[in-house]
Amino acid sequence: MKKKVIKFGGTSVGSIERIMHAAKIIQEESNKGNKLIVVVSAMAGKTSELISMSKQISNKFVKRELDVLLSTGEQVSCALISGALNELGIKAQSFMNWQIPILTDGDHNNSRIINMNTTKINDYITNGGVAIVPGYQGISKLGEVTTIGRGGSDATAVAIAKIFDTDSCEIYTDVDGVYSTDPNKIPVAKKIDKISYEEMLELSSLGAKVMQSSAVQTAMIYEIPLQVRSTFTDRPGTKIFSKNNLDYTKAVTGVAYSKDEAKITLQDVEDKPGIAAEIFEPLGKNQINIDMVIQNVSSDGKTTDITFTVKRDDLDKSLNILKKNKQIRYKNLSFKSNVSKISIVGAGMVTTPGITYKMFRALAEEKINILAISTSEIKISVIIEEKFTVEAAKKLHSIFNLD
Amino acid sequence: MKKKVIKFGGTSVGSIERIMHAAKIIQEESNKGNKLIVVVSAMAGKTSELISMSKQISNKFVKRELDVLLSTGEQVSCALISGALNELGIKAQSFMNWQIPILTDGDHNNSRIINMNTTKINDYITNGGVAIVPGYQGISKLGEVTTIGRGGSDATAVAIAKIFDTDSCEIYTDVDGVYSTDPNKIPVAKKIDKISYEEMLELSSLGAKVMQSSAVQTAMIYEIPLQVRSTFTDRPGTKIFSKNNLDYTKAVTGVAYSKDEAKITLQDVEDKPGIAAEIFEPLGKNQINIDMVIQNVSSDGKTTDITFTVKRDDLDKSLNILKKNKQIRYKNLSFKSNVSKISIVGAGMVTTPGITYKMFRALAEEKINILAISTSEIKISVIIEEKFTVEAAKKLHSIFNLD
Repeated sequence: MKKKVIKFGGTSVGSIERIMHAAKIIQEESNKGNKLIVVVSAMAGKTSELISMSKQISNKFVKRELDVLLSTGEQVSCALISGALNELGIKAQSFMNWQIPILTDGDHNNSRIINMNTTKINDYITNGGVAIVPGYQGISKLGEVTTIGRGGSDATAVAIAKIFDTDSCEIYTDVDGVYSTDPNKIPVAKKIDKISYEEMLELSSLGAKVMQSSAVQTAMIYEIPLQVRSTFTDRPGTKIFSKNNLDYTKAVTGVAYSKDEAKITLQDVEDKPGIAAEIFEPLGKNQINIDMVIQNVSSDGKTTDITFTVKRDDLDKSLNILKKNKQIRYKNLSFKSNVSKISIVGAGMVTTPGITYKMFRALAEEKINILAISTSEIKISVIIEEKFTVEAAKKLHSIFNLD
Repeated sequence: MKKKVIKFGGTSVGSIERIMHAAKIIQEESNKGNKLIVVVSAMAGKTSELISMSKQISNKFVKRELDVLLSTGEQVSCALISGALNELGIKAQSFMNWQIPILTDGDHNNSRIINMNTTKINDYITNGGVAIVPGYQGISKLGEVTTIGRGGSDATAVAIAKIFDTDSCEIYTDVDGVYSTDPNKIPVAKKIDKISYEEMLELSSLGAKVMQSSAVQTAMIYEIPLQVRSTFTDRPGTKIFSKNNLDYTKAVTGVAYSKDEAKITLQDVEDKPGIAAEIFEPLGKNQINIDMVIQNVSSDGKTTDITFTVKRDDLDKSLNILKKNKQIRYKNLSFKSNVSKISIVGAGMVTTPGITYKMFRALAEEKINILAISTSEIKISVIIEEKFTVEAAKKLHSIFNLD
């Protein structure tokens, strides 16, 4: 008998038929004698529909009421799942954000879960009931409805796993796990059976949209074992652990890429303390996310070249801000849109020599020019021209024995 | 400066365009300096859509979760109306059932409002804000979401008028008031400017579906002045007062009818104390609503004929129950489906002689046979064959000078 969190994503509860199917998965888990807390997302498309309604009223729809509006999506799923379980003869009950309560901190539309009262739900599941909890939401200390950012139902599941000290946290979704690269574009992609939090984080933040990054981060901090699996097959999915619990037979676990990047280079910037802050502060204040940053000091030590990437949509805005800022002295500002970032990720990389060299040579063999490089302990990212993205991913996937 | 409850029905908030329109009505009222509590229904069709989803899962969808499900409809409307008001520059905020809270008593799906905490909302409206409250729902003493029966948003509006001691209660709907008869079928129908609670009750329970009966009843008990008006025109609608505040220039205020009735007659029933209870108790226990009941004692005083009406859908079930019950002794059981009930309603009727006679003669002139009669202080109802319904209503509307 285990205490489990099971989370169903939007597509897994996207129709009445799918809700009945999810209820049957819960029924099987319950019949094994497990104590279950089920977290549900809004039905697929529901949140977008509600957002679209709000936008028809105002592009700056008041944030407090947006939270009241959007939180209804998961409430509907909760009631339907609970109703379906009761129909199957399973004792089940929905618990709304204010009934538990799920306490949050931070701004409307962007809060985070800080605590939950465990009494009611622990009583309920100890007495054989299945507790159904809405993802993505909570209430603030002032008793206001708050939501925790899109995809936040993953974060709710992980927070429950942590606060209720459950044995596991299973994320049911519409893919059957984490893949070594994008299976839609590169058919030789393979499902990964086991992966570390760190690798998963790199893969998810680099474009493999299986699980929300901040939820993986929380799981990593508290060492909560995760399992990502498909609602629609019986296959075991991908297990996500701490690095220490994994054997590394492969140096590289996966190849991730993100298109829609743009690269900006400032040449011969006066090299003085605080210059990076001077460049990036005004960009940050204008909600522009900076991704890779590479800085080369010039041979005379007096000037430096700074290259960084932004989302392509932010390119024009970024260039305007840089040009307006007269405090930054540089010789030349150049940019390149239509670039993409491609990364190899692997926790075993640090102990395997020659990975960097192997990657660069493989790209050279394909005559793909590398425009910028950034490395960390468990990944190597390069910027290349966008048109080579899939070709490069295929090549890397192959040479690192992932096919 | 007045303290007002304004309630918008489902069609009045049935689209984003209509929500913006409702927000403008509220803006005008707010600009006059009124303190406003706004009650909103779910968007037209929303509650039916949610019920249909629940029925796809189960025909006996668990009542507790049905309340959780359905209550989201009004939450969505609240958030959208509040967002629209903020967009117009009006200070406004939604208050959820549990935030106020609205306390209810009774069963799931069929509760009633027993109290509300007035502190937060009074503070808010005193400081110039417009409070937006979901109709149709509340929470029980145990903190469970409860709904108060379909059309219950009217009841919420009246309960707020009572508990917050407001100066008025305005019901915005898709018709521009209460009519002297059904305007869709009988074009000479006229809007009634002023009507008593009692007349309104008779008219609404008899088929003029303008306002929910129990809401009118509550308004009558606490003498809360009501106004029913259209969201889509500027016309003043119908004001509903206590009888004492009305002048009666006409004996008859309106003509109401309901089709889909069935009539059952038990002939020569043994006339003994308790016989009526014996007949009606098993019907009541089977959720069959008895409407008109007429009893004629026979000339010898030993037997009696009992006639009553039920909804046509309940006819077969009723006949089965009566036939099975061997304790009731009667000579003959007869019934007639395809009948309808037609009623004239008027608080001035009691002081005007000859109304009954005039009604019966008018129907006789049209060769319409009266199958049963029932009278009260402010109405006379007759059962006739269904095919004559509209003809009879037109005739009565005309002879009582309502055209």
